[in-house]
Amino acid sequence: MELLKNKVLQEGIVLGEQVLKVDSFLNHQVDPVLMMEIGKEFAARFAGERITKVLTIESSGIAPAVMTALQLGVPLIFARKRKSLTLRDDLLTEKVYSFTKQEESEVSVSKKFLSPGDRVLLIDDFLANGEAAFGLARISEKAGATVAGIGIVIEKAFQPGGRKLLDAGYRVESLAPIASLADGRVTFADKPEPQTNPV
Amino acid sequence: MELLKNKVLQEGIVLGEQVLKVDSFLNHQVDPVLMMEIGKEFAARFAGERITKVLTIESSGIAPAVMTALQLGVPLIFARKRKSLTLRDDLLTEKVYSFTKQEESEVSVSKKFLSPGDRVLLIDDFLANGEAAFGLARISEKAGATVAGIGIVIEKAFQPGGRKLLDAGYRVESLAPIASLADGRVTFADKPEPQTNPV
Repeated sequence: MELLKNKVLQEGIVLGEQVLKVDSFLNHQVDPVLMMEIGKEFAARFAGERITKVLTIESSGIAPAVMTALQLGVPLIFARKRKSLTLRDDLLTEKVYSFTKQEESEVSVSKKFLSPGDRVLLIDDFLANGEAAFGLARISEKAGATVAGIGIVIEKAFQPGGRKLLDAGYRVESLAPIASLADGRVTFADKPEPQTNPV
Repeated sequence: MELLKNKVLQEGIVLGEQVLKVDSFLNHQVDPVLMMEIGKEFAARFAGERITKVLTIESSGIAPAVMTALQLGVPLIFARKRKSLTLRDDLLTEKVYSFTKQEESEVSVSKKFLSPGDRVLLIDDFLANGEAAFGLARISEKAGATVAGIGIVIEKAFQPGGRKLLDAGYRVESLAPIASLADGRVTFADKPEPQTNPV
């Protein structure tokens, strides 16, 4: 997605070979017009998948996910993340390890919002090791729902999450897959999309 | 806002005289079409205020706030909430006490996203005691910005937050102000809006 990649190139801050900071348009300050375009792009890519629910994790996934849900005409659910959660039998809960924060948190969704008939689209802002996506997938599958696809805004494709999700049989669509953050700059993994020059 | 009030009446669950659960369309599962209508309503109410930034707190404020920001054509910032935060001088940080959770958390915004010229619209999903709104207001004012208004999706108007914010001189717009949750039902505080019957 050229619009997103250009934003990453213009405003992303490379903090070492593993870390890209995009807090000016995605993670802290949010560009709502870009979020809407991201929502349209995910809706187009997953148009044939008969999605019934969009599922993300608080907090940075919510803005792109709500736009995707709007475009698909389905509800959004955002999973709650807590360090420790009182065990409650009305919740589907999975442990998710964050390599960035080096801590395990619990992620949960109310049972009443996911059903066996659901075809779920998982949306997240970043994909690195795939922990969050696998956690959301396990929650969906515990509810008997089908994971119809996984939409990622920015994928650190030099980390193993994307490959692991594909190997597990999931369809993954990354709007800005990054091959490398070496030498302080962003190199995207896929071929450049055809340029359309505005007249 | 009739559409929202009807949703509260249809799907809100009254859990005692203080607690209204709206996790089927606002706090956990989210109705994106309703969020868009809420965004349009806030944008219309604050149209004359020359808003330059929308500011909310993660997580439940993000969905209505990103739609408001989209409609106003300005960026959204969502403040980060943490139990304890490493002191960093690039952050504006305020303590916010949650009566619901009975705990104090710290709320922070990067200094680089708020400037003295900014006219900030604060958006939140709930208003009860006003702690979160005052925290966001203090952060904005620390940055030298002006709080041009406060938009609340659901106000528990029988709690003191709304009055305190008005007394402090802020303009507050609540889309669904609730007078009482007594007897297991929702009673709204304001007069019914004129009904427009679809032909």
